[in-house]
Amino acid sequence: MTPAYQLFNLGSNNQLAQEISTILGKPLSPIDVKTFADNEIYERIENTVRGRDVYVIQGISDPVNENFMRLMIFIDAARRASANSINVVIPYFGYARADRKARSREPISARLIADMLESQGVKRVMTMDLHADQVQGFFDIPVDHLIAMPALGHYFYENNLLGDDLVVVAPGHSSVARARKFAKLLHAQWAIVDHRLDKDTNEFSYQITGDVSGKRAILVDDIIDTGSSMVQSSKALNDAGVDVIYAVATHAVLSNKASQLLDQSHIKQVIVTNTIEVPAKKEFSKLIKLSVAAPFAEALKRVDAFESIQDVLKSQDNLDVTL
Amino acid sequence: MTPAYQLFNLGSNNQLAQEISTILGKPLSPIDVKTFADNEIYERIENTVRGRDVYVIQGISDPVNENFMRLMIFIDAARRASANSINVVIPYFGYARADRKARSREPISARLIADMLESQGVKRVMTMDLHADQVQGFFDIPVDHLIAMPALGHYFYENNLLGDDLVVVAPGHSSVARARKFAKLLHAQWAIVDHRLDKDTNEFSYQITGDVSGKRAILVDDIIDTGSSMVQSSKALNDAGVDVIYAVATHAVLSNKASQLLDQSHIKQVIVTNTIEVPAKKEFSKLIKLSVAAPFAEALKRVDAFESIQDVLKSQDNLDVTL
Amino acid sequence: MTPAYQLFNLGSNNQLAQEISTILGKPLSPIDVKTFADNEIYERIENTVRGRDVYVIQGISDPVNENFMRLMIFIDAARRASANSINVVIPYFGYARADRKARSREPISARLIADMLESQGVKRVMTMDLHADQVQGFFDIPVDHLIAMPALGHYFYENNLLGDDLVVVAPGHSSVARARKFAKLLHAQWAIVDHRLDKDTNEFSYQITGDVSGKRAILVDDIIDTGSSMVQSSKALNDAGVDVIYAVATHAVLSNKASQLLDQSHIKQVIVTNTIEVPAKKEFSKLIKLSVAAPFAEALKRVDAFESIQDVLKSQDNLDVTL
Amino acid sequence: MTPAYQLFNLGSNNQLAQEISTILGKPLSPIDVKTFADNEIYERIENTVRGRDVYVIQGISDPVNENFMRLMIFIDAARRASANSINVVIPYFGYARADRKARSREPISARLIADMLESQGVKRVMTMDLHADQVQGFFDIPVDHLIAMPALGHYFYENNLLGDDLVVVAPGHSSVARARKFAKLLHAQWAIVDHRLDKDTNEFSYQITGDVSGKRAILVDDIIDTGSSMVQSSKALNDAGVDVIYAVATHAVLSNKASQLLDQSHIKQVIVTNTIEVPAKKEFSKLIKLSVAAPFAEALKRVDAFESIQDVLKSQDNLDVTL
Amino acid sequence: MTPAYQLFNLGSNNQLAQEISTILGKPLSPIDVKTFADNEIYERIENTVRGRDVYVIQGISDPVNENFMRLMIFIDAARRASANSINVVIPYFGYARADRKARSREPISARLIADMLESQGVKRVMTMDLHADQVQGFFDIPVDHLIAMPALGHYFYENNLLGDDLVVVAPGHSSVARARKFAKLLHAQWAIVDHRLDKDTNEFSYQITGDVSGKRAILVDDIIDTGSSMVQSSKALNDAGVDVIYAVATHAVLSNKASQLLDQSHIKQVIVTNTIEVPAKKEFSKLIKLSVAAPFAEALKRVDAFESIQDVLKSQDNLDVTL
Amino acid sequence: MTPAYQLFNLGSNNQLAQEISTILGKPLSPIDVKTFADNEIYERIENTVRGRDVYVIQGISDPVNENFMRLMIFIDAARRASANSINVVIPYFGYARADRKARSREPISARLIADMLESQGVKRVMTMDLHADQVQGFFDIPVDHLIAMPALGHYFYENNLLGDDLVVVAPGHSSVARARKFAKLLHAQWAIVDHRLDKDTNEFSYQITGDVSGKRAILVDDIIDTGSSMVQSSKALNDAGVDVIYAVATHAVLSNKASQLLDQSHIKQVIVTNTIEVPAKKEFSKLIKLSVAAPFAEALKRVDAFESIQDVLKSQDNLDVTL
Repeated sequence: MTPAYQLFNLGSNNQLAQEISTILGKPLSPIDVKTFADNEIYERIENTVRGRDVYVIQGISDPVNENFMRLMIFIDAARRASANSINVVIPYFGYARADRKARSREPISARLIADMLESQGVKRVMTMDLHADQVQGFFDIPVDHLIAMPALGHYFYENNLLGDDLVVVAPGHSSVARARKFAKLLHAQWAIVDHRLDKDTNEFSYQITGDVSGKRAILVDDIIDTGSSMVQSSKALNDAGVDVIYAVATHAVLSNKASQLLDQSHIKQVIVTNTIEVPAKKEFSKLIKLSVAAPFAEALKRVDAFESIQDVLKSQDNLDVTL
Repeated sequence: MTPAYQLFNLGSNNQLAQEISTILGKPLSPIDVKTFADNEIYERIENTVRGRDVYVIQGISDPVNENFMRLMIFIDAARRASANSINVVIPYFGYARADRKARSREPISARLIADMLESQGVKRVMTMDLHADQVQGFFDIPVDHLIAMPALGHYFYENNLLGDDLVVVAPGHSSVARARKFAKLLHAQWAIVDHRLDKDTNEFSYQITGDVSGKRAILVDDIIDTGSSMVQSSKALNDAGVDVIYAVATHAVLSNKASQLLDQSHIKQVIVTNTIEVPAKKEFSKLIKLSVAAPFAEALKRVDAFESIQDVLKSQDNLDVTL
Repeated sequence: MTPAYQLFNLGSNNQLAQEISTILGKPLSPIDVKTFADNEIYERIENTVRGRDVYVIQGISDPVNENFMRLMIFIDAARRASANSINVVIPYFGYARADRKARSREPISARLIADMLESQGVKRVMTMDLHADQVQGFFDIPVDHLIAMPALGHYFYENNLLGDDLVVVAPGHSSVARARKFAKLLHAQWAIVDHRLDKDTNEFSYQITGDVSGKRAILVDDIIDTGSSMVQSSKALNDAGVDVIYAVATHAVLSNKASQLLDQSHIKQVIVTNTIEVPAKKEFSKLIKLSVAAPFAEALKRVDAFESIQDVLKSQDNLDVTL
Repeated sequence: MTPAYQLFNLGSNNQLAQEISTILGKPLSPIDVKTFADNEIYERIENTVRGRDVYVIQGISDPVNENFMRLMIFIDAARRASANSINVVIPYFGYARADRKARSREPISARLIADMLESQGVKRVMTMDLHADQVQGFFDIPVDHLIAMPALGHYFYENNLLGDDLVVVAPGHSSVARARKFAKLLHAQWAIVDHRLDKDTNEFSYQITGDVSGKRAILVDDIIDTGSSMVQSSKALNDAGVDVIYAVATHAVLSNKASQLLDQSHIKQVIVTNTIEVPAKKEFSKLIKLSVAAPFAEALKRVDAFESIQDVLKSQDNLDVTL
Repeated sequence: MTPAYQLFNLGSNNQLAQEISTILGKPLSPIDVKTFADNEIYERIENTVRGRDVYVIQGISDPVNENFMRLMIFIDAARRASANSINVVIPYFGYARADRKARSREPISARLIADMLESQGVKRVMTMDLHADQVQGFFDIPVDHLIAMPALGHYFYENNLLGDDLVVVAPGHSSVARARKFAKLLHAQWAIVDHRLDKDTNEFSYQITGDVSGKRAILVDDIIDTGSSMVQSSKALNDAGVDVIYAVATHAVLSNKASQLLDQSHIKQVIVTNTIEVPAKKEFSKLIKLSVAAPFAEALKRVDAFESIQDVLKSQDNLDVTL
Repeated sequence: MTPAYQLFNLGSNNQLAQEISTILGKPLSPIDVKTFADNEIYERIENTVRGRDVYVIQGISDPVNENFMRLMIFIDAARRASANSINVVIPYFGYARADRKARSREPISARLIADMLESQGVKRVMTMDLHADQVQGFFDIPVDHLIAMPALGHYFYENNLLGDDLVVVAPGHSSVARARKFAKLLHAQWAIVDHRLDKDTNEFSYQITGDVSGKRAILVDDIIDTGSSMVQSSKALNDAGVDVIYAVATHAVLSNKASQLLDQSHIKQVIVTNTIEVPAKKEFSKLIKLSVAAPFAEALKRVDAFESIQDVLKSQDNLDVTL
C-alpha cells in the first residue's frame, strides 16, 4: 500500500506552514536546512520519502533568490531520494510580475522559474493569486490556483462593512479586472484611479474614472510592494472627497518604507493575507492579516484524496468568485 | 557560404504573403500543398532547403485547425529536409484567447499551440498583437512580437482625425490597457463601456465609466470576432450622446454575422489590419483595411540581417508605442 | 485508494464509443465540447479527473484535422486537471499512410502525429490495424495494437463461406502480407492484382499473379479510401473469370464517390468494421459493417486490470493471427 | 569563417571509408580508438574539432554491439569537444529488421538505436537501403536515405544481361516491393517465391507465384544474412525450370555458413555492395562486390555544399528509382 | 490493486541473480534472450509486465558492450509492454572509470551510459561501489548506491584477522580515500604505495608513504582489472619488509593474465565480491569470493516496500561505513 | 556574415571581467542589472544580441544564490533576444563540492546547477579547477575546464622558490591527487596531513604521512573556505619541524574569519588566484593574488576562433600539467 504523504516546510513562512500543518493534523517532516559559511545552502531530508508523495511549502518571497534556491535544492534531494511525487506549495509566487517582455531584450523571469521547477520533475504547483492568470500557462504541469478573494471579501461581510455607499477602486488600470470582480462580490460599484507620468515635469498625475465622491472606497490589488500606488491612489481619492478608504491585497510584500507610508496615509485599514510572513519590524497598527491556511489545507487534503478543489474557490458567502 | 533564406506561404493569407514577398523582393518558394480525398493534408517542398533559413507565413485563422496542421506538417517536412532553421510568421495567432483556465478542467490551448510548435524544432515565432502579452511567455524560443498600433494610430494622424473631442473607449474591462495606450498615442482621454450580465433577466446591461458625452469615440480592441461587443458598446455610446464612433482592431475575425451587424450599427468606420484575409462575402462598405505587410517585411529583413527590430515597434508619428 | 478510471468520447465515432461504453458497463463521462463562431474548439471536462486514469476514444478520421485537434485539446485539459494518466483510443489512425518519405522534402506526418501526442504526456495509445506495423515504432510509449482480422475472418467462418475454391487477393503489391495472412486464416490460396501506370498512355494496366480463374475471390486491404483499387481489381478479377468477389477492409474511409463505385462494381459484398463511422449518405446495400467494440472493450478492461491483451489478438476460430 | 568539415572512420568498414575519403580528396582525421583489457572502448579525437562539422563513417555491422558503442562513444567525445555538428554515415544500419512488434513484449530495437543516436545530439543520419522505408520515421532528425538500386541495376546494363527472358523474383512475400521496383528498372517481369512452414512436418514448402519457367531469374533482397532464403528460393526456381539465377542484395551480412551455401547453390552470381566489409574468409568465387563509395561521397559533398541529393538517387541509366 | 513486482536476469551474472532471487523468494521471470547469426540481440519477455514494477539484474561487465545492449533492449521491450516502472540493478557498472576528461577530446563514457539509460525511461538504478561517488550525479534519477565494505570488512572480523600490526594500503594515490575508510573500519593505520613513471627509462618506480615495515598489509581498491597495480604494490610492500599481504577489492574484473599474476605474487589472499561472475578459467586458489546477494536482496525488498535502505549501508560489525 | 561576439559581465567579479575584456580588446557590452525593492533581480540587455555569440562572465561566488540567479535571468533574456549561442564563463563554480550523496537524502546541488544551465539552452561552460574533475560529466554540453596550476606553479619558478628541500603537502586525504600533481610540476616530494575526528574527545588529531621534517612545505588545495584545514595543517607541519610554509589554492572563498586565521598562522604566504574577487575587508598582508585573466582571455579567443585550447592548459614553464 502506498504510504501516506509527507509535508515539508522550507522556512519562507513558518507561521503559515505551521497553521496548515495543524489544520491537516499532519506534522511537518523534519529536514536539516542550513547555510554554510560561504552561503551555499545545504539540505538533508531526515526521514525516508521513498515512494511518498511529498508536499513542500515554500514561498518565493524576500529573500526571493535564497528562497527559490532552497526550493530547488529540496526538489533535487527529494527526487534522488525516490519520492513518488513532488508537489510544491508556493503561497507567494515571486517574479510573477516579470511575465512578459515590455521592452526588447528583457527576460520573462516568471517563465524561467516555471521552467526550472518543471525541469527537475515537480508534479504539481499549488499557489495563490498569480499576478496574471496567464502565468498558469507558463507551466505544463497542473497548477492548483487558489484565490484569496473569498477570505478578503468575507472580511467585509463579517464586519458589516457592506452598503450602497461602497465603491471598489482599482489603483491603476492593470487592476481593473480584479476590482471589478471584487465589486461584484460585494455588490458594489467600481472605479479607477489612473496615473500617468508627465514627461516634462516628471510627475505623476492622477485621474479618477468613475463616481467616488462621498463614498467609502476599497482599493484592491494583488500585491502591495512599495505601497506607493496604494498611497498615491488614496491621496487622489481623498482629494476627490472620499473619507473612508480601505486597501485590500493578497500579498503583503511591503518593501522599503511601505509600512510607514501606509500607516501615515489616508487609508483606514490595510487588509492582507498571510501568504507572505510580515516580519515584526514591518507590522503597523492599520495592518489586518487574514489567514489563508484554511484554503491551502483544504486544497491539499482534496488533492491527496483525488477530489476536486473547485469548492475551495468559492466564497464563504456562497458566491462564485471564479468568474 | 550560407545560402540565402527562403520564404514560404501556406495559404492562410495569400494577399499579405504576396505583399511581404514583394516588399522584400524575395519570391515565395514553390510548395505543393494539397488535400487528399479524405481531407488529409499533403505538402512537398519543391526546391532544396538544405542549410537554408526558412521563413513560413501562415496565420492560425479560420479554418484554424486546418491552417495550424498545414503549418505543423510543413515544419516536419522542412526539418527532415535539413533546413538550417525554421521561423514561423503567424500574422494572427488563433487560440490566443484560450490563455488561462477560467474554470477548472479547461485547457490552455494557446500554450498547447506553442508547445507543439516548439516540440518540432521551430526556432522563432513572429506574430502581431497577441491577445495577452503574457502569451510570449508560453514560448521558450524567441518571439518577435510586432504591434499594429503604429499603423492603426497613423490612420487617425494622416486623416486629420485628432482633436480634443476624441475619446478612446475600451469595449469591456479587458481592453482597458489597450485603450489607454491608444489614447496616449492620440493624445486623447479614455473611458470604458463595462457590460454585466443580469442573472435574473439574463440580459446584459452597459455602464460607461468616464466622460464621453458629445465627444467622438474610438472603440479599440485587439480582435473583432462576432462583433457583438463592438456593436453593443457603440449602442451604449450612442445612448450616452456620442454621434461619431470608430471601431479599431488588429484582427478582423468577423465570425457569423459580424460584418452585417457592424455595417448596420452606429459605427462610422471599422478600421482593421490585414493580418486575417477578409473573404469577399464578408466585405462591407464601412470596413477599412490597413496593410501590415510593411512592418512584417521590415522585421523579417532585420531578423535575417541580425539587426534589432526595436524601431519597427515605433509609430510613424515618432511615438514610442511599446510602453 | 486509486479512483476508478473514466471513459471519454470526443465525438469522431459516437456509435462505437457508445458500444464500448455499454460492453464495459462504464458510462461516458460528460464533457462540454463546442466550436466557437471562429471555429476554435473549446472543451471542458465536467467532473473531476484528479488522480484518475483517463481513457479517451477519438479516431483521426474525416474531418481529420478537427478530430485530431479535439484530441490534443482534451489531452491538455486532462493533464492540467491532474489526471493520473491519459490513454488515447484511436480506432482509426489517420495520416498513418504518410509513414515514410517517398520523395525528397516530404513530411512523415504519421510520426508528427505520434510526436505531438507524446509531447503532451499521453501514456498509451490503443489503435487498430495501422497501415504499416512499423508505425508502432513512431511511438516511445506503449501502443496496444489491435487487429480486425479475427472479426473479419470470423465473418467467413460463421457464414459458411470457406472452401477450396476460395482465393484471397491483394489489390496491389503493398497488400501482399495482409492477403497472405488472411489466406492462412481461411486456409485459402492467395494471389495479387498488380497495377502499373503506362507513362505513354497514362493508363493503368492490371496483371494478375497467381491462379484465380473460376474461384471465389476475397480482395483484402486495410483501408478503402476512394475505392478505386478495390473496384479496378475486381474488374481485373472479373475479366480473369472470377464471378464471386468479396472486398474486405478494416477502415471504411469511403472518400469521394467510393460508395457509389463499390455499389456498382462486380463486388458482391464489402465487409468492413466500424472503426470509422459511416454517415448515412455513404451507406449502400452491399456494405456489411462488423463491430470491433468487443475487442476494444476487452482490451480496455484488461489494460485497466493489468492483464495481457495477447488473447484479444486471437481469432474466435482459435487461430493465432498475429504471426 | 567556419572551418572545413572533418571526416572520421571508426573501423567497421575500412575499405569503404578509405574509398569515400579518396573520392572526396578529404583525408580521414586521426582518432585513437582502442579496446582496454576488459573490453571497454576508448576513443580520443586527435585534432581539434571545435566548430567543425564532423562526419563519421561507421556501419552497425557485425560485431553490431561493439560497432554501435564505438559510434556512441565517438559522438560523446565529439560533442564535448565542441563539434559544430555531428553527422553519422551508417552504410549498414543493423537492427533495422527489429522495426515492429511482431509479438507482444518484443522490443523495437531499430527505434532504440535511433533514439540513442538522437539523444546524444546527432544532427543527421546518412544510410543506405533501410530494411523498411518507415525506419526513416524512427528519427526526428534528417535522414539522407541512399539507395543501392542504381548501382545494382547498372551492373545488369553494363554487362548486357537485360532481355525479355529476365524475371525478377522476390525470395519471400516481404521482398515484393523491392523486386517489383527492380523489375521496372530492368524492364522485366516479376514473380514471388513464397515459403510456408508446415507445422506438422516442420518443413518449409515453396510455391512460386508468377511465370518463371525457362527464364533467367534475378532474386532480389535487401540483406543476405544466413543466405537460406536465397538458397531455398534458388532451389525452388531450379525445380521450376530456371537455369540461370542471379542473387542481388545491398547488404552482405553473410552470417554462419552463408558463403558456403551460396557457393554450392544453383545461383550463378551473388551481386552485393560493399556497405559491409566482407572478411577474406567469407569471400567466394561467385561473389561480386560493387562499390557504393561514389554515391556516399557524392551525397556527403552535396550535404556539405547545401545542395540537394535528389540526383544521387537516380540510376546511371537515367531511370528514376525512387518511385 | 497493483500487481507484485517482477524480477529479471539478463545473464551477465547468473549466480548472483539466482542468489538474489532465492533470498527474496521471488523467482526470476522468464525471458527469451537470444543472439541471431549476425550477432544482433533478440529478447522477448514471456509473461505480461503490464502495470508491474520491473527489476532487472544485469552487470555491465565483460563483454561490456553486449551486456549493456542487452540491458537497453530489455528496457525498450519492458517500456513498450507497459511496465509500471523499470528499475535496473547493475552489480558492476562498467565504463565508470571513464568519468572525466583527462585530456582534450576524450569522451565521458560513464555519463553516456547514464544518459542512455535515463533517455529510455529507467526509473531507478541500483549499483555497488561506483569508481567515483560523483558518478551518482551523472544521473537525475535515484541511484541506490550499495557498498561492499561491510562484507569485505566483516571477512577480517570473522576470521580474526584484526590486530595492531595491520595496515591498510592504497595501491596508488587514487585509492587513498577508500583505504583510509577501510582502515577506520578495521581500526588500523593506513599507507600509500605511490607509483611514478620515469619518462627516460619508461619504468615505474614505487614509493611507500607511511609506516609498513613488519606489519601485515591489506591492499584495498575498488576494481582489480589487469591486477598490475595490486601485484606491483605487493612487490613494493614485500621489498619494504611486509610478509603478509591481502588484496581486497569489490569488483573482480580480472582481465588478461590477472589471475595468473595474482596467484604468483606475494599476495596471500585476494578477497573480492561476486558483483562480477568469475569464469572457471579465471579461478585460482588464493581467490576468496564473498557474496553480495544479501545486501542487494535486502535493498530490493526495502525499495519495493518503500523503506529506507540506509541500514543496508551499515556493516554487520555495527560500524557506519558511509562516512 | 555572422556578427562578432559580445562579452558581458554580471558583476560577481568586476576586476577579473575588466581584465579579460582589456586583454581581448573587447569592451564589456552594456547591460542594465538592478535589484528591485523586493530583491527581485531585473536585467535588460541594452544592445541587440540577435545572431551574436554571447559570452557572459559570472562566478557563482558569495552571494552564491543571487549570483546564480543573475546568470539564469541573463540567459533567459539573451535566448529570447535571439542570441546565436550563450556561453557562460564561471571563474568559480559554487556548489561544486555538493557533487555526490555522502548520506541518504542529500541533494547533488552541483548537478542541479548544471541541469538548470543546460535546460535554458546554454551552449558551453568555461570554468576553472572544479572541485572534482567528474563535475565535467554533470554537463552534456562542452565544458572548457581551465586550470590554475600553470599560474600557481609559475609563481614558485619566477620567485626562485624551488629546491630539494621543498615538499608539497595535501592538507587532507582528498587533496592528494592535486598535491601529487603540483609536486610533479615543482620536481618536489609530497606528503599528507591527515586529520581524524576522535569521537570521544570530539577533537581532531593530525597525522603526517611522508617525510617533512626540516623541509619547506607548500600546502595545496583547490579552495580556501573557512581556512581551517590550511591553518590546522600548518600547525601540524610546524609541530613536525617545518618552518617555512606556503598555502596555495585556486579559489579564495575566505568565509567567516578565514583571513584573520590565516594571517595569524604559521603560513608565510597564501597564494591564490582572482577567480573570486576578494573584498577589501578580507585582504591581509600575506595574501598574494595571481591573475587568471590571461588564460581565460586566451581560451575565449581560441574558442571564438575555433581553435584548440589545449595549449592554454600547459604551464609557462613548459610542463604538461593536465596529466
